[in-house]
Amino acid sequence: MKTLTKELWMEVPERRGIVSIHREVEQLVRESQVHDGMVLINAMHITASVFINDNESGLHADYERWLEELVPFNAGSDPATGGYLHNRTGEDNADAHHKRQIMGREVVVAITDGKLHLGPWEHLFYYEFDGRRRKRVLVKIIGE
Amino acid sequence: MKTLTKELWMEVPERRGIVSIHREVEQLVRESQVHDGMVLINAMHITASVFINDNESGLHADYERWLEELVPFNAGSDPATGGYLHNRTGEDNADAHHKRQIMGREVVVAITDGKLHLGPWEHLFYYEFDGRRRKRVLVKIIGE
Amino acid sequence: MKTLTKELWMEVPERRGIVSIHREVEQLVRESQVHDGMVLINAMHITASVFINDNESGLHADYERWLEELVPFNAGSDPATGGYLHNRTGEDNADAHHKRQIMGREVVVAITDGKLHLGPWEHLFYYEFDGRRRKRVLVKIIGE
Repeated sequence: MKTLTKELWMEVPERRGIVSIHREVEQLVRESQVHDGMVLINAMHITASVFINDNESGLHADYERWLEELVPFNAGSDPATGGYLHNRTGEDNADAHHKRQIMGREVVVAITDGKLHLGPWEHLFYYEFDGRRRKRVLVKIIGE
Repeated sequence: MKTLTKELWMEVPERRGIVSIHREVEQLVRESQVHDGMVLINAMHITASVFINDNESGLHADYERWLEELVPFNAGSDPATGGYLHNRTGEDNADAHHKRQIMGREVVVAITDGKLHLGPWEHLFYYEFDGRRRKRVLVKIIGE
Repeated sequence: MKTLTKELWMEVPERRGIVSIHREVEQLVRESQVHDGMVLINAMHITASVFINDNESGLHADYERWLEELVPFNAGSDPATGGYLHNRTGEDNADAHHKRQIMGREVVVAITDGKLHLGPWEHLFYYEFDGRRRKRVLVKIIGE
C-alpha cells in the first residue's frame, strides 16, 4: 500500500470565503503515484468545510446568502435576540460551527488510473466560515 | 489490495426523484471479492446526491417537501424575487446545487466478511435534483 | 493491509443527545496497530449521526435549537399541521430522519503515525435523534 499525507495551509483574509484547492489535490495525487485508491480531503478546523460543487461565482454568492439565512451570523450569546450560547465562551463564531455542518467536513474521492476520478463539473473547494487566521486542510491518499 | 471501479448510469425521467441503488452496490461488492475494506459511492454530478436512509415512500415525500422549503426551486436569477445568481449562466438548477449539499455527495460503507456492513434499516439511494438526462454514480471498492 | 472492525453500542436515555465517542475511537486506532490509513466511523441507524465539531456544551445546545427550527419534532402524520407522512407507518420519528441528514451519517478520519490525524479542536461525537433504545456505531479501520 502507498500513502501520502499532506497538510495544506490556508489563510482567507475575510471572515468567509470559498477557495479552490482542486489543482493542489490533483498535484498530490500525481506525487503519490497511487494508481488505484482513495483520497480523503478534510478541513482540520471546525469552522470550515471541504466540498465539491460548481466552480461558478454566482453559485458561490448564492451559497453565502442561503447559509446566512439558515444560520445568521450573530456575535451575541442570547438566543432570545438571535445569538448563540456558544458565544458565551468569548467566541463570535457560533454560526460558523453550524454552516460547516451544512457544507460538510470532508470529501472522499476515488483515484483511478492515477487520477482523481471525478465527474465533468466536480470541483474541490475549501469553504472558510471564520477566517483571518491560518488554518489547514488535510489530504490523505491511500492505495497502490 | 483488491479494487473494483464501476460507474452506474442513471436517468431519472422527472426533475427530481429518489432511486434505490442498494442491490447494484451489493452485487458489486460480491464481484469485487473484497472481504475486508471500504466502498465509496458518490454522485458524479453536482446536482445529485447519494445518501443512506429509510426505504419508505412517505419519508421520501417528506424529504421532497422539506428540501423545497429550505431551498425552493426558482428558475429566475434575481435574488430579490427568490431567484439565484447561478441561473444567470442560463441554467435553472441553482436550487439543485443547494439541495445536494443537504443530502450529501457520497457515502463510505465498510465491507466486512465480503458484505456491506450496514445496520438493519440502512438503504442506499441516489437522489436526483435535476434529471431528465443521463448521469453517473461511481462505486469504488478497496480492500483485500 | 491491516483492518479492525468494531461496533460500539450506545443507549441514550432521552430522545436526543450528543455523546463523545472520541476516546473509544482513539483506543481502537491504537489496538489496530495501523500506522497509516483511514478510519470510517458511522451511525448504523438512520435516526442518528456521527459528526466532528467542538466539545462545548453551549454549541451543542445551539445545535439542538437550530435543528428543531429547521425540522421540528411532530408526531403527527398530516403535513398540513406540521406532521410528516413517514409517521403514518406508526413511527413518530420522521424529524429524526431529517436531522441526521443535516448532521451527517459518517466521518472518515486519516490515521498518521498510528494516531487519529485531527486538527486541534476536532472531536468525535455520536448524535442521537431517537433514543431510549440500544443502537450501534461502526468503526472500521484499514491501512498498514
